[in-house]
Amino acid sequence: MITSTSNAKVKELVQLQKKSKARSKAKKFVVEGIRMVKETPRDRLEALYISESFWNKYGNPIEGAFAEMLSDKVFAYVSDTKTPQGILAVVRQIEYDVKEMIQGQDAHILILDNLQDPGNLGTIFRTAEAAGVTGILLSMGCADIYNPKTIRSTMGSLYRMPFAYVEEFIETIQEVKKNGIKVFAAHLEGKNSYDQEDYRKGSAFLIGNEGNGLRQEVADCADVRIRIPMQGQVESLNAAIAATVLMFEVSRQRR
Amino acid sequence: MITSTSNAKVKELVQLQKKSKARSKAKKFVVEGIRMVKETPRDRLEALYISESFWNKYGNPIEGAFAEMLSDKVFAYVSDTKTPQGILAVVRQIEYDVKEMIQGQDAHILILDNLQDPGNLGTIFRTAEAAGVTGILLSMGCADIYNPKTIRSTMGSLYRMPFAYVEEFIETIQEVKKNGIKVFAAHLEGKNSYDQEDYRKGSAFLIGNEGNGLRQEVADCADVRIRIPMQGQVESLNAAIAATVLMFEVSRQRR
Repeated sequence: MITSTSNAKVKELVQLQKKSKARSKAKKFVVEGIRMVKETPRDRLEALYISESFWNKYGNPIEGAFAEMLSDKVFAYVSDTKTPQGILAVVRQIEYDVKEMIQGQDAHILILDNLQDPGNLGTIFRTAEAAGVTGILLSMGCADIYNPKTIRSTMGSLYRMPFAYVEEFIETIQEVKKNGIKVFAAHLEGKNSYDQEDYRKGSAFLIGNEGNGLRQEVADCADVRIRIPMQGQVESLNAAIAATVLMFEVSRQRR
Repeated sequence: MITSTSNAKVKELVQLQKKSKARSKAKKFVVEGIRMVKETPRDRLEALYISESFWNKYGNPIEGAFAEMLSDKVFAYVSDTKTPQGILAVVRQIEYDVKEMIQGQDAHILILDNLQDPGNLGTIFRTAEAAGVTGILLSMGCADIYNPKTIRSTMGSLYRMPFAYVEEFIETIQEVKKNGIKVFAAHLEGKNSYDQEDYRKGSAFLIGNEGNGLRQEVADCADVRIRIPMQGQVESLNAAIAATVLMFEVSRQRR
Protein backbone atom coordinates (compact mmCIF):
# COMPACT_ATOMS: atom_id res chain seq x y z
CA MET A 1 0.00 0.00 0.00
CA ILE A 2 1.26 3.46 -0.89
CA THR A 3 1.07 5.72 2.15
CA SER A 4 3.27 8.63 1.12
CA THR A 5 2.41 11.58 -1.11
CA SER A 6 6.05 11.74 -2.20
CA ASN A 7 5.80 8.34 -3.89
CA ALA A 8 6.67 8.63 -7.62
CA LYS A 9 3.37 7.11 -8.80
CA VAL A 10 1.44 9.52 -6.61
CA LYS A 11 3.38 12.42 -8.05
CA GLU A 12 2.60 11.24 -11.59
CA LEU A 13 -1.12 10.99 -10.75
CA VAL A 14 -1.20 14.53 -9.41
CA GLN A 15 0.54 15.81 -12.55
CA LEU A 16 -1.93 13.97 -14.79
CA GLN A 17 -4.89 15.29 -12.80
CA LYS A 18 -3.77 18.90 -12.71
CA LYS A 19 -1.72 19.59 -15.82
CA SER A 20 -2.93 19.49 -19.37
CA LYS A 21 0.70 19.53 -20.57
CA ALA A 22 1.63 16.51 -18.45
CA ARG A 23 -1.34 14.64 -19.93
CA SER A 24 -0.48 15.44 -23.50
CA LYS A 25 3.20 14.64 -22.99
CA ALA A 26 2.48 11.26 -21.40
CA LYS A 27 -0.51 10.64 -23.72
CA LYS A 28 -2.45 9.50 -20.69
CA PHE A 29 -5.25 10.79 -18.50
CA VAL A 30 -7.04 9.87 -15.26
CA VAL A 31 -10.64 8.76 -14.82
CA GLU A 32 -12.31 8.51 -11.43
CA GLY A 33 -15.21 6.53 -10.03
CA ILE A 34 -16.44 3.00 -10.56
CA ARG A 35 -18.60 3.87 -13.55
CA MET A 36 -15.89 5.53 -15.64
CA VAL A 37 -13.30 2.92 -14.63
CA LYS A 38 -15.62 0.06 -15.64
CA GLU A 39 -16.30 1.69 -19.01
CA THR A 40 -12.59 2.01 -19.78
CA PRO A 41 -11.59 -0.31 -22.67
CA ARG A 42 -9.21 -2.87 -21.18
CA ASP A 43 -6.50 -2.33 -23.79
CA ARG A 44 -6.30 1.34 -22.76
CA LEU A 45 -6.12 0.77 -19.00
CA GLU A 46 -2.57 1.63 -17.95
CA ALA A 47 -2.91 1.51 -14.17
CA LEU A 48 -5.57 1.07 -11.54
CA TYR A 49 -5.59 2.60 -8.04
CA ILE A 50 -7.95 1.72 -5.22
CA SER A 51 -8.24 3.31 -1.76
CA GLU A 52 -7.87 1.17 1.32
CA SER A 53 -11.54 1.67 2.35
CA PHE A 54 -12.82 0.85 -1.12
CA TRP A 55 -10.63 -2.25 -1.23
CA ASN A 56 -11.87 -3.47 2.16
CA LYS A 57 -15.49 -2.99 1.08
CA TYR A 58 -15.49 -4.16 -2.53
CA GLY A 59 -12.04 -5.57 -3.37
CA ASN A 60 -10.88 -5.05 -6.95
CA PRO A 61 -13.93 -4.81 -9.24
CA ILE A 62 -11.90 -4.97 -12.47
CA GLU A 63 -11.31 -8.65 -13.11
CA GLY A 64 -7.77 -9.56 -14.14
CA ALA A 65 -6.42 -6.02 -13.75
CA PHE A 66 -3.60 -5.36 -11.31
CA ALA A 67 -4.62 -2.73 -8.78
CA GLU A 68 -2.39 -0.72 -6.48
CA MET A 69 -3.73 0.21 -3.06
CA LEU A 70 -3.49 3.78 -1.75
CA SER A 71 -4.10 4.81 1.84
CA ASP A 72 -7.31 6.84 2.12
CA LYS A 73 -5.28 9.95 2.81
CA VAL A 74 -3.14 9.52 -0.29
CA PHE A 75 -6.20 8.70 -2.39
CA ALA A 76 -7.90 11.91 -1.24
CA TYR A 77 -4.68 13.74 -2.12
CA VAL A 78 -4.65 12.53 -5.73
CA SER A 79 -8.43 12.69 -6.26
CA ASP A 80 -10.01 15.58 -8.12
CA THR A 81 -13.29 15.29 -6.20
CA LYS A 82 -14.23 16.40 -2.72
CA THR A 83 -15.73 13.03 -1.81
CA PRO A 84 -13.63 10.48 -3.72
CA GLN A 85 -15.24 7.16 -4.60
CA GLY A 86 -11.93 5.39 -3.95
CA ILE A 87 -11.15 4.05 -7.41
CA LEU A 88 -9.36 5.65 -10.34
CA ALA A 89 -7.52 4.56 -13.46
CA VAL A 90 -4.78 5.89 -15.68
CA VAL A 91 -5.93 5.58 -19.28
CA ARG A 92 -4.04 5.77 -22.56
CA GLN A 93 -5.13 8.53 -24.99
CA ILE A 94 -5.87 7.40 -28.54
CA GLU A 95 -5.83 9.35 -31.77
CA TYR A 96 -8.67 9.23 -34.23
CA ASP A 97 -8.09 9.56 -37.95
CA VAL A 98 -9.35 13.00 -38.99
CA LYS A 99 -9.47 12.07 -42.69
CA GLU A 100 -11.82 9.21 -41.88
CA MET A 101 -13.92 11.36 -39.58
CA ILE A 102 -14.66 14.03 -42.16
CA GLN A 103 -16.17 12.01 -44.94
CA GLY A 104 -19.37 10.20 -45.77
CA GLN A 105 -22.93 11.00 -46.72
CA ASP A 106 -24.04 10.40 -43.15
CA ALA A 107 -21.44 12.58 -41.52
CA HIS A 108 -22.82 14.65 -38.64
CA ILE A 109 -19.92 16.70 -37.36
CA LEU A 110 -19.48 19.32 -34.67
CA ILE A 111 -16.65 21.80 -35.10
CA LEU A 112 -15.89 23.64 -31.86
CA ASP A 113 -14.08 26.98 -32.04
CA ASN A 114 -12.27 27.81 -28.79
CA LEU A 115 -14.86 26.42 -26.41
CA GLN A 116 -13.54 27.26 -22.97
CA ASP A 117 -15.83 25.79 -20.38
CA PRO A 118 -14.84 22.24 -19.32
CA GLY A 119 -18.37 21.35 -18.20
CA ASN A 120 -19.87 22.59 -21.47
CA LEU A 121 -17.41 20.54 -23.48
CA GLY A 122 -18.18 17.35 -21.57
CA THR A 123 -21.92 17.92 -21.89
CA ILE A 124 -21.51 18.42 -25.63
CA PHE A 125 -19.75 15.05 -25.96
CA ARG A 126 -22.48 13.25 -24.02
CA THR A 127 -25.27 14.97 -25.94
CA ALA A 128 -23.52 14.45 -29.27
CA GLU A 129 -23.39 10.70 -28.80
CA ALA A 130 -27.11 10.67 -28.01
CA ALA A 131 -27.89 12.77 -31.10
CA GLY A 132 -25.89 10.54 -33.44
CA VAL A 133 -22.97 12.88 -34.06
CA THR A 134 -20.22 11.02 -35.96
CA GLY A 135 -17.23 13.12 -34.93
CA ILE A 136 -16.11 16.28 -33.12
CA LEU A 137 -13.31 18.58 -34.30
CA LEU A 138 -11.82 21.00 -31.80
CA SER A 139 -9.63 24.05 -32.32
CA MET A 140 -6.42 24.11 -30.28
CA GLY A 141 -7.95 26.87 -28.12
CA CYS A 142 -10.69 24.61 -26.80
CA ALA A 143 -10.62 23.36 -23.21
CA ASP A 144 -8.83 20.06 -22.64
CA ILE A 145 -11.23 17.13 -22.99
CA TYR A 146 -9.02 15.22 -20.53
CA ASN A 147 -9.63 17.77 -17.78
CA PRO A 148 -11.12 15.78 -14.82
CA LYS A 149 -14.29 17.90 -14.74
CA THR A 150 -14.81 17.46 -18.47
CA ILE A 151 -14.29 13.72 -18.30
CA ARG A 152 -16.93 13.48 -15.57
CA SER A 153 -19.52 15.38 -17.60
CA THR A 154 -18.97 13.21 -20.70
CA MET A 155 -20.43 10.28 -18.72
CA GLY A 156 -18.40 7.79 -20.73
CA SER A 157 -19.05 9.29 -24.17
CA LEU A 158 -15.37 10.25 -24.19
CA TYR A 159 -14.63 6.58 -24.97
CA ARG A 160 -17.14 6.35 -27.79
CA MET A 161 -17.16 9.68 -29.62
CA PRO A 162 -14.44 10.13 -32.27
CA PHE A 163 -12.76 13.51 -31.86
CA ALA A 164 -9.59 15.39 -32.71
CA TYR A 165 -7.87 18.64 -31.81
CA VAL A 166 -6.73 20.08 -35.13
CA GLU A 167 -3.89 22.54 -35.56
CA GLU A 168 -4.80 23.43 -39.14
CA PHE A 169 -8.33 24.36 -38.14
CA ILE A 170 -9.40 26.47 -41.12
CA GLU A 171 -7.77 24.08 -43.60
CA THR A 172 -9.60 21.15 -42.02
CA ILE A 173 -12.94 22.94 -42.36
CA GLN A 174 -12.14 23.49 -46.05
CA GLU A 175 -11.40 19.74 -46.32
CA VAL A 176 -14.79 18.98 -44.78
CA LYS A 177 -16.43 21.12 -47.47
CA LYS A 178 -14.41 19.52 -50.27
CA ASN A 179 -15.73 16.16 -49.11
CA GLY A 180 -19.26 17.34 -49.87
CA ILE A 181 -20.26 17.92 -46.28
CA LYS A 182 -22.25 21.14 -45.88
CA VAL A 183 -20.87 23.45 -43.22
CA PHE A 184 -23.34 25.49 -41.16
CA ALA A 185 -22.33 28.26 -38.77
CA ALA A 186 -24.53 28.89 -35.75
CA HIS A 187 -24.51 32.67 -35.88
CA LEU A 188 -26.55 35.49 -34.38
CA GLU A 189 -26.64 37.12 -37.82
CA GLY A 190 -27.72 33.97 -39.65
CA LYS A 191 -30.39 34.58 -42.29
CA ASN A 192 -32.29 31.33 -42.12
CA SER A 193 -33.65 29.80 -38.97
CA TYR A 194 -31.88 26.51 -38.22
CA ASP A 195 -35.03 24.47 -38.86
CA GLN A 196 -35.37 25.75 -42.42
CA GLU A 197 -32.33 23.82 -43.64
CA ASP A 198 -32.02 20.20 -44.75
CA TYR A 199 -29.53 18.18 -42.70
CA ARG A 200 -30.29 14.72 -44.06
CA LYS A 201 -27.04 14.60 -46.01
CA GLY A 202 -23.57 15.13 -44.55
CA SER A 203 -23.65 18.20 -42.29
CA ALA A 204 -21.18 19.97 -40.04
CA PHE A 205 -21.83 22.70 -37.47
CA LEU A 206 -19.49 25.44 -36.34
CA ILE A 207 -20.03 26.29 -32.66
CA GLY A 208 -18.32 29.35 -31.18
CA ASN A 209 -16.78 30.37 -27.90
CA GLU A 210 -19.13 31.08 -24.96
CA GLY A 211 -18.34 34.77 -24.70
CA ASN A 212 -17.22 35.79 -28.16
CA GLY A 213 -18.98 33.43 -30.55
CA LEU A 214 -17.21 32.25 -33.70
CA ARG A 215 -14.04 33.96 -34.85
CA GLN A 216 -14.71 35.91 -38.04
CA GLU A 217 -12.33 33.81 -40.15
CA VAL A 218 -13.99 30.63 -38.90
CA ALA A 219 -17.55 31.88 -39.51
CA ASP A 220 -16.43 32.90 -43.01
CA CYS A 221 -15.71 29.24 -43.84
CA ALA A 222 -19.36 28.24 -43.53
CA ASP A 223 -21.57 27.45 -46.54
CA VAL A 224 -24.58 28.82 -44.67
CA ARG A 225 -25.11 30.88 -41.53
CA ILE A 226 -28.08 29.77 -39.52
CA ARG A 227 -29.63 31.30 -36.45
CA ILE A 228 -31.58 29.89 -33.56
CA PRO A 229 -34.63 32.14 -33.11
CA MET A 230 -34.73 33.56 -29.59
CA GLN A 231 -37.57 35.21 -27.75
CA GLY A 232 -37.42 37.59 -24.80
CA GLN A 233 -34.30 39.62 -24.16
CA VAL A 234 -31.84 36.74 -24.37
CA GLU A 235 -28.74 37.76 -26.30
CA SER A 236 -27.22 34.33 -26.80
CA LEU A 237 -27.52 30.73 -25.74
CA ASN A 238 -24.99 28.71 -23.79
CA ALA A 239 -22.73 26.91 -26.32
CA ALA A 240 -23.80 23.42 -25.23
CA ILE A 241 -27.45 24.47 -25.46
CA ALA A 242 -27.04 25.93 -28.97
CA ALA A 243 -25.24 22.77 -30.09
CA THR A 244 -28.05 20.67 -28.62
CA VAL A 245 -30.77 22.50 -30.54
CA LEU A 246 -28.89 21.91 -33.81
CA MET A 247 -27.84 18.29 -33.16
CA PHE A 248 -31.34 17.20 -32.24
CA GLU A 249 -32.82 18.92 -35.29
CA VAL A 250 -30.45 16.80 -37.42
CA SER A 251 -31.46 13.72 -35.48
CA ARG A 252 -35.16 14.57 -35.93
CA GLN A 253 -34.82 15.13 -39.68
CA ARG A 254 -32.91 11.88 -40.14
CA ARG A 255 -35.42 9.71 -38.33
CA MET B 1 -16.07 53.19 3.41
CA ILE B 2 -16.62 49.91 5.19
CA THR B 3 -13.27 48.34 6.04
CA SER B 4 -14.22 45.72 8.61
CA THR B 5 -15.67 42.27 8.00
CA SER B 6 -17.49 42.52 11.32
CA ASN B 7 -19.66 45.39 10.05
CA ALA B 8 -23.37 44.48 10.29
CA LYS B 9 -24.03 45.11 6.59
CA VAL B 10 -21.10 42.90 5.63
CA LYS B 11 -22.40 40.16 7.86
CA GLU B 12 -25.84 40.42 6.22
CA LEU B 13 -24.26 40.17 2.76
CA VAL B 14 -22.35 37.03 3.67
CA GLN B 15 -25.52 35.44 5.05
CA LEU B 16 -27.43 36.29 1.87
CA GLN B 17 -24.65 34.90 -0.31
CA LYS B 18 -24.20 31.66 1.56
CA LYS B 19 -27.51 30.71 3.12
CA SER B 20 -30.66 29.84 1.28
CA LYS B 21 -32.59 30.17 4.56
CA ALA B 22 -31.29 33.69 5.17
CA ARG B 23 -32.39 34.67 1.66
CA SER B 24 -35.87 33.27 2.01
CA LYS B 25 -36.32 34.80 5.47
CA ALA B 26 -35.22 38.26 4.32
CA LYS B 27 -36.92 37.83 0.91
CA LYS B 28 -33.76 39.23 -0.65
CA PHE B 29 -30.81 37.95 -2.66
CA VAL B 30 -27.48 39.21 -3.98
CA VAL B 31 -26.46 39.74 -7.60
CA GLU B 32 -22.88 40.41 -8.65
CA GLY B 33 -21.25 42.07 -11.62
CA ILE B 34 -22.10 45.13 -13.65
CA ARG B 35 -24.33 43.29 -16.07
CA MET B 36 -26.65 41.74 -13.50
CA VAL B 37 -26.70 44.91 -11.40
CA LYS B 38 -27.66 47.02 -14.41
CA GLU B 39 -30.45 44.62 -15.33
CA THR B 40 -31.95 44.83 -11.84
CA PRO B 41 -35.35 46.60 -11.90
CA ARG B 42 -34.89 49.81 -9.89
CA ASP B 43 -37.90 49.20 -7.67
CA ARG B 44 -36.32 45.95 -6.48
CA LEU B 45 -32.85 47.33 -5.77
CA GLU B 46 -32.46 47.36 -1.97
CA ALA B 47 -28.79 48.21 -1.64
CA LEU B 48 -25.74 48.73 -3.82
CA TYR B 49 -22.13 48.01 -2.87
CA ILE B 50 -19.03 49.03 -4.81
CA SER B 51 -15.40 48.18 -4.12
CA GLU B 52 -12.86 50.96 -3.68
CA SER B 53 -10.99 50.04 -6.89
CA PHE B 54 -14.18 49.87 -8.93
CA TRP B 55 -15.30 53.21 -7.52
CA ASN B 56 -12.00 54.88 -8.37
CA LYS B 57 -12.16 53.55 -11.93
CA TYR B 58 -15.83 53.89 -12.84
CA GLY B 59 -17.62 55.67 -9.99
CA ASN B 60 -21.22 54.63 -9.40
CA PRO B 61 -22.72 53.37 -12.69
CA ILE B 62 -26.29 53.22 -11.36
CA GLU B 63 -27.66 56.71 -11.70
CA GLY B 64 -29.59 57.97 -8.70
CA ALA B 65 -28.91 54.93 -6.56
CA PHE B 66 -27.07 55.30 -3.28
CA ALA B 67 -23.96 53.14 -3.22
CA GLU B 68 -21.90 52.09 -0.24
CA MET B 69 -18.15 51.69 -0.71
CA LEU B 70 -16.34 48.58 0.54
CA SER B 71 -12.58 48.23 0.84
CA ASP B 72 -11.26 45.77 -1.76
CA LYS B 73 -10.50 43.28 0.98
CA VAL B 74 -14.02 43.43 2.39
CA PHE B 75 -15.50 43.22 -1.10
CA ALA B 76 -13.47 40.08 -1.83
CA TYR B 77 -14.72 38.71 1.49
CA VAL B 78 -18.41 39.12 0.60
CA SER B 79 -18.05 38.18 -3.08
CA ASP B 80 -18.99 34.72 -4.31
CA THR B 81 -16.47 34.84 -7.16
CA LYS B 82 -12.73 34.34 -7.19
CA THR B 83 -12.11 37.50 -9.19
CA PRO B 84 -14.84 39.92 -8.09
CA GLN B 85 -15.91 42.64 -10.51
CA GLY B 86 -16.32 45.05 -7.62
CA ILE B 87 -20.05 45.73 -7.77
CA LEU B 88 -22.99 43.91 -6.23
CA ALA B 89 -26.56 44.61 -5.28
CA VAL B 90 -29.07 43.34 -2.76
CA VAL B 91 -32.33 42.67 -4.58
CA ARG B 92 -35.86 42.12 -3.32
CA GLN B 93 -37.48 38.78 -4.20
CA ILE B 94 -40.92 38.95 -5.81
CA GLU B 95 -43.67 36.40 -5.92
CA TYR B 96 -45.44 35.48 -9.12
CA ASP B 97 -49.08 34.47 -9.15
CA VAL B 98 -49.20 30.72 -9.79
CA LYS B 99 -52.89 30.81 -10.75
CA GLU B 100 -52.10 33.30 -13.49
CA MET B 101 -49.05 31.38 -14.63
CA ILE B 102 -50.91 28.13 -15.22
CA GLN B 103 -53.61 29.21 -17.61
CA GLY B 104 -54.01 30.20 -21.21
CA GLN B 105 -54.03 28.59 -24.64
CA ASP B 106 -50.46 29.75 -25.19
CA ALA B 107 -49.06 28.45 -21.93
CA HIS B 108 -45.64 26.85 -22.30
CA ILE B 109 -44.69 25.68 -18.85
CA LEU B 110 -41.74 23.81 -17.38
CA ILE B 111 -42.34 21.82 -14.20
CA LEU B 112 -39.09 20.89 -12.50
CA ASP B 113 -39.06 17.96 -10.08
CA ASN B 114 -36.20 18.17 -7.56
CA LEU B 115 -33.59 19.57 -9.94
CA GLN B 116 -30.44 19.73 -7.84
CA ASP B 117 -27.69 21.29 -9.92
CA PRO B 118 -27.52 25.10 -9.54
CA GLY B 119 -25.82 25.57 -12.92
CA ASN B 120 -28.41 23.43 -14.69
CA LEU B 121 -31.22 25.39 -13.11
CA GLY B 122 -29.79 28.72 -14.20
CA THR B 123 -29.18 27.47 -17.73
CA ILE B 124 -32.77 26.26 -17.89
CA PHE B 125 -34.05 29.73 -16.99
CA ARG B 126 -31.91 31.40 -19.65
CA THR B 127 -32.85 28.84 -22.32
CA ALA B 128 -36.51 28.93 -21.33
CA GLU B 129 -36.74 32.67 -21.93
CA ALA B 130 -35.19 32.20 -25.38
CA ALA B 131 -37.61 29.38 -26.21
CA GLY B 132 -40.69 31.38 -25.19
CA VAL B 133 -41.52 29.51 -22.01
CA THR B 134 -44.27 31.36 -20.12
CA GLY B 135 -43.56 30.10 -16.60
CA ILE B 136 -41.53 27.65 -14.52
CA LEU B 137 -42.87 25.69 -11.56
CA LEU B 138 -40.37 24.15 -9.15
CA SER B 139 -40.82 21.47 -6.48
CA MET B 140 -39.54 22.43 -3.03
CA GLY B 141 -36.66 19.97 -3.50
CA CYS B 142 -35.18 21.96 -6.40
CA ALA B 143 -31.97 23.93 -5.95
CA ASP B 144 -32.39 27.54 -4.83
CA ILE B 145 -32.73 29.86 -7.82
CA TYR B 146 -31.18 32.63 -5.68
CA ASN B 147 -27.95 30.67 -5.22
CA PRO B 148 -25.15 32.93 -6.55
CA LYS B 149 -24.00 30.34 -9.12
CA THR B 150 -27.53 29.88 -10.39
CA ILE B 151 -28.13 33.60 -10.67
CA ARG B 152 -24.98 33.94 -12.77
CA SER B 153 -26.03 31.24 -15.20
CA THR B 154 -29.50 32.75 -15.69
CA MET B 155 -27.79 35.73 -17.37
CA GLY B 156 -30.60 38.06 -16.33
CA SER B 157 -33.49 35.75 -17.24
CA LEU B 158 -34.15 35.49 -13.51
CA TYR B 159 -35.70 38.97 -13.74
CA ARG B 160 -37.90 38.15 -16.70
CA MET B 161 -39.09 34.56 -16.32
CA PRO B 162 -42.14 34.03 -14.10
CA PHE B 163 -41.52 31.16 -11.67
CA ALA B 164 -42.71 29.73 -8.39
CA TYR B 165 -41.65 27.11 -5.87
CA VAL B 166 -44.85 25.21 -5.06
CA GLU B 167 -45.44 23.26 -1.89
CA GLU B 168 -48.51 21.47 -3.21
CA PHE B 169 -46.63 20.18 -6.21
CA ILE B 170 -48.89 17.31 -7.32
CA GLU B 171 -52.04 19.37 -6.71
CA THR B 172 -50.64 22.19 -8.81
CA ILE B 173 -49.93 19.83 -11.70
CA GLN B 174 -53.54 18.65 -11.46
CA GLU B 175 -54.63 22.32 -11.61
CA VAL B 176 -52.54 22.78 -14.77
CA LYS B 177 -54.39 19.86 -16.37
CA LYS B 178 -57.79 21.16 -15.25
CA ASN B 179 -56.98 24.40 -17.05
CA GLY B 180 -56.74 22.48 -20.33
CA ILE B 181 -52.96 22.51 -20.51
CA LYS B 182 -51.59 19.16 -21.65
CA VAL B 183 -48.93 17.76 -19.35
CA PHE B 184 -46.05 15.81 -20.92
CA ALA B 185 -43.50 13.83 -18.93
CA ALA B 186 -40.00 13.47 -20.36
CA HIS B 187 -39.48 9.83 -19.55
CA LEU B 188 -37.08 7.09 -20.64
CA GLU B 189 -40.09 4.77 -20.98
CA GLY B 190 -42.17 7.20 -23.01
CA LYS B 191 -44.02 5.57 -25.90
CA ASN B 192 -43.99 8.41 -28.41
CA SER B 193 -40.95 10.32 -29.48
CA TYR B 194 -41.18 13.96 -28.36
CA ASP B 195 -41.48 15.21 -31.95
CA GLN B 196 -44.60 13.17 -32.63
CA GLU B 197 -46.75 15.30 -30.34
CA ASP B 198 -48.52 18.58 -31.02
CA TYR B 199 -47.46 21.41 -28.71
CA ARG B 200 -49.20 24.31 -30.43
CA LYS B 201 -51.82 24.55 -27.68
CA GLY B 202 -51.07 24.97 -23.98
CA SER B 203 -48.34 22.51 -23.00
CA ALA B 204 -46.40 21.74 -19.84
CA PHE B 205 -43.33 19.53 -19.41
CA LEU B 206 -42.27 17.56 -16.36
CA ILE B 207 -38.47 17.43 -16.04
CA GLY B 208 -36.90 15.13 -13.47
CA ASN B 209 -33.89 15.10 -11.19
CA GLU B 210 -30.44 14.64 -12.77
CA GLY B 211 -29.72 11.28 -11.16
CA ASN B 212 -33.11 9.76 -10.50
CA GLY B 213 -35.43 11.21 -13.11
CA LEU B 214 -39.05 12.00 -12.24
CA ARG B 215 -40.54 10.66 -9.05
CA GLN B 216 -43.12 7.98 -9.83
CA GLU B 217 -46.03 9.95 -8.37
CA VAL B 218 -45.04 12.99 -10.42
CA ALA B 219 -44.62 11.05 -13.69
CA ASP B 220 -48.04 9.51 -13.03
CA CYS B 221 -49.63 12.97 -13.26
CA ALA B 222 -48.74 13.35 -16.93
CA ASP B 223 -51.27 13.08 -19.76
CA VAL B 224 -48.58 11.63 -22.03
CA ARG B 225 -45.09 10.24 -21.51
CA ILE B 226 -42.70 11.21 -24.26
CA ARG B 227 -39.14 10.12 -24.85
CA ILE B 228 -36.18 11.75 -26.52
CA PRO B 229 -34.68 9.16 -28.89
CA MET B 230 -31.03 8.55 -28.04
CA GLN B 231 -28.34 6.85 -30.08
CA GLY B 232 -25.12 5.21 -28.89
CA GLN B 233 -24.84 3.97 -25.34
CA VAL B 234 -26.09 7.11 -23.64
CA GLU B 235 -28.44 6.27 -20.79
CA SER B 236 -29.85 9.70 -20.17
CA LEU B 237 -29.41 13.35 -21.02
CA ASN B 238 -28.44 16.14 -18.68
CA ALA B 239 -31.67 17.73 -17.35
CA ALA B 240 -31.01 21.13 -18.95
CA ILE B 241 -30.26 19.43 -22.27
CA ALA B 242 -33.45 17.35 -22.18
CA ALA B 243 -35.47 20.46 -21.33
CA THR B 244 -33.81 22.31 -24.23
CA VAL B 245 -34.75 19.66 -26.79
CA LEU B 246 -38.40 19.86 -25.69
CA MET B 247 -38.63 23.64 -25.36
CA PHE B 248 -37.18 24.28 -28.79
CA GLU B 249 -39.48 21.72 -30.37
CA VAL B 250 -42.42 23.70 -28.93
CA SER B 251 -40.87 26.90 -30.23
CA ARG B 252 -40.35 25.34 -33.67
CA GLN B 253 -43.92 24.07 -33.90
CA ARG B 254 -45.37 27.41 -32.85
CA ARG B 255 -43.43 29.44 -35.43
